[in-house]
Amino acid sequence: MRNVLIIGAGKSTAQLIKYLAENAITEDLRLIVADKEFINATRLAKDWACVEAIQLEIADTEVRQQLIKNAAIVISMLPARLHIEIARDCLRFKKNMVTASYISEEMEALHKEVTASGLIFMNEIGLDPGIDHMSAMRVIDRIRDQGGKLLLFESFCGGLVAPESDDNLWNYKFTWNPRNVVLAGQGGAAEFIQEGTYKYIPYQRLFRRTEFLDVEGYGRFEAYANRNSLKYRSIYGLEDVLTLYRGTMRRVGFSRAWNLFVQLGMTDDSYVLQDTETMSYREFTNLFLPYSPTDSVQLKLRHMLKIDQDDLLWDKLLELNLFDKTKKIGLRKATPAQCLQRILEDKWTLDHNDKDMIVMYHKFGYELKGEQKQIDSTMVSVGENQTYTAMAKTVGLPVGIAALKILNGVIANPGVQLPVSKEVYNPILDELETHGIIFKEYEVPYLGYNPHHE
Amino acid sequence: MRNVLIIGAGKSTAQLIKYLAENAITEDLRLIVADKEFINATRLAKDWACVEAIQLEIADTEVRQQLIKNAAIVISMLPARLHIEIARDCLRFKKNMVTASYISEEMEALHKEVTASGLIFMNEIGLDPGIDHMSAMRVIDRIRDQGGKLLLFESFCGGLVAPESDDNLWNYKFTWNPRNVVLAGQGGAAEFIQEGTYKYIPYQRLFRRTEFLDVEGYGRFEAYANRNSLKYRSIYGLEDVLTLYRGTMRRVGFSRAWNLFVQLGMTDDSYVLQDTETMSYREFTNLFLPYSPTDSVQLKLRHMLKIDQDDLLWDKLLELNLFDKTKKIGLRKATPAQCLQRILEDKWTLDHNDKDMIVMYHKFGYELKGEQKQIDSTMVSVGENQTYTAMAKTVGLPVGIAALKILNGVIANPGVQLPVSKEVYNPILDELETHGIIFKEYEVPYLGYNPHHE
Repeated sequence: MRNVLIIGAGKSTAQLIKYLAENAITEDLRLIVADKEFINATRLAKDWACVEAIQLEIADTEVRQQLIKNAAIVISMLPARLHIEIARDCLRFKKNMVTASYISEEMEALHKEVTASGLIFMNEIGLDPGIDHMSAMRVIDRIRDQGGKLLLFESFCGGLVAPESDDNLWNYKFTWNPRNVVLAGQGGAAEFIQEGTYKYIPYQRLFRRTEFLDVEGYGRFEAYANRNSLKYRSIYGLEDVLTLYRGTMRRVGFSRAWNLFVQLGMTDDSYVLQDTETMSYREFTNLFLPYSPTDSVQLKLRHMLKIDQDDLLWDKLLELNLFDKTKKIGLRKATPAQCLQRILEDKWTLDHNDKDMIVMYHKFGYELKGEQKQIDSTMVSVGENQTYTAMAKTVGLPVGIAALKILNGVIANPGVQLPVSKEVYNPILDELETHGIIFKEYEVPYLGYNPHHE
Repeated sequence: MRNVLIIGAGKSTAQLIKYLAENAITEDLRLIVADKEFINATRLAKDWACVEAIQLEIADTEVRQQLIKNAAIVISMLPARLHIEIARDCLRFKKNMVTASYISEEMEALHKEVTASGLIFMNEIGLDPGIDHMSAMRVIDRIRDQGGKLLLFESFCGGLVAPESDDNLWNYKFTWNPRNVVLAGQGGAAEFIQEGTYKYIPYQRLFRRTEFLDVEGYGRFEAYANRNSLKYRSIYGLEDVLTLYRGTMRRVGFSRAWNLFVQLGMTDDSYVLQDTETMSYREFTNLFLPYSPTDSVQLKLRHMLKIDQDDLLWDKLLELNLFDKTKKIGLRKATPAQCLQRILEDKWTLDHNDKDMIVMYHKFGYELKGEQKQIDSTMVSVGENQTYTAMAKTVGLPVGIAALKILNGVIANPGVQLPVSKEVYNPILDELETHGIIFKEYEVPYLGYNPHHE
């Protein structure tokens, strides 16, 4: 029996355990799921004979190290900042390790030792980061193997509500961490390259500079720029590419409406408001509007943000009860962003029967034998239910598959790494296809821009 | 002979020295001006027999303490963060001290010891903070002494170019630190109270929520909100006031045009741009605009910011050469804010013969015997030349006057303090009037708002 230690019973762990448990007999696996809350671990373990639940305080070095010592491989589903302790133990006891998080500087610093020990610390092997890396690199490598030269790479991903559950005016519900959605885009300008020119979008313009994306069978989406596209130059070896852009996908119209919150200042998380516990939604809205002895909150907002009387934007605000006098924020010492999240959660929380949806869209522009070409590649995954969501599936499955491939020596190249090499992405993407996570490719006219213009 | 030690030969020190030197014989003063650059100290000392220039490294404890030991009073004109070292020495050698800076937490922490030693550490005794405190508290105390109750306090100040030197479309030139002007309003939402309701303006809206102010003989100004008005509640004892607002004054139209820079992202100081040394003004502008193979930078900007063809906003941008292909930024590794400052300095630097102007405007709303009243109080000071600017005068004079009043025991109440008590502001404001720094008062209808509305 080979022990697979899974630390952290988060949202994606259910899918991960399902995958590994279904392979337990053929692969001779025993699963240990450890969480600081025993109930969380138990909930995930109870349906499977091969899974054992354990209560674990990460700070409890003795128990933690005992578990790691007895494992054949360690999967950390903890929040990113907690991986490093596990990683140091894995190095000490010579265990391979898998995480779905971005490689931290501390993790990166272990690379030499990990390599020298012949170990594999695979990171960024969830959805985004994860499936984005693998699906992009497969096409990029193929273009290069044919002798092509990459001119353009754009990549988009969105966690959305499935069409059958899409029943509000925003065409959006929270399918992951609502706080990240409210704070999205803050902390610095979005940087990218278009036709060899650096471009910067400040937060206050971010949601007004979107582009449209059509996905076969799912209609039109829009995307706003992610903060840092430039780091993908070195990761994907795209130093000479003329256009490099990454963005977040939403249904059309979301960003223009979200921009209202940005302009009002409702997404600010840097200061605490007074009296938020008893504050009505209307009073909250009024905080960001000029005082008037006579004008209504509605008219002041319409006027300040120049919303026409027949603009659907307005209905989106009404749907959220922003002008309601009776609904209370009910949070103590909350920031504007926390209050806004509270208001949005009324309407954007998934119902019990709602399904989520993941959409990914890549564009690859390239030159081959003097000809300019473009491949667009899209993937859509719809969740089964609230446990096996599309988000959990697209995070949990690649983690589980990677763990098994490492355990079985299919992935064998040592080091602290992310999945950008053929040895890693090919077997994982192939197996993901058998689970319905499939990229469709389209040859389209190269839509890049003339690099001699500004 | 009484030694007055002045540490720091900055922009306001010339005026300070002039004032003290002119009083040197009658007051039996000897002035020592110390700066880490000997040439700066010498430049200020050379015209006066009673002034001695000294080179001083602040970190040189021995020389510093010797100077302080021999002083009758110490004036620190250093940057705010450097006062604390001087303050500790003053405490040690039992010397009174004067600064024009906001009281830091470290300075505040000395209050008990300073008081126990019978010393006076007078701070915030320049223009803003300084003259604003004194002129406001004189009216507030008068209203209270009559039995009035304050309902509203608004206070505005601006450092501008004098009407006779006002020759650009922005009606603005840099009269103090340009960097502070470029970064103005950043770092958090502006907070204030209107009619008992908290109000918050995010940076991206700050320059679109201005109010107009008319000053007799000088025409119309506008003001945008300062970041934190609320701290003046406790300083001025205005805990129950319904409206509390502080703002920065500009000529009408400045803020609406400045907002273009904010919206583009040009005032961002949080990241460094690539290749700024050889970048043209046009290329800089284009960084913040979408890529287009055919459209000009001009049209892209007009379109993105919705600037009508006949809007004077446009001429303001042209005046700054924002679309010039030949002018280069010429700064290494500069932030957007640093590049913008460089561009603005071409046009907004004071010419040799230019004069600056300080404008201050207070509004006091109050209730007296059941009647609501309002007093508006304004002060305008125009500079003489580039040495004796209005800014230097309104900072240097109150510092010098306060130092003499403390030296002569007119101001005698010990402690780490700012000038809000009658003992302090009355003699200083009276003497400032003899130097032409005069507040004019106007009884106007109370313009406060009905507190029962939103």
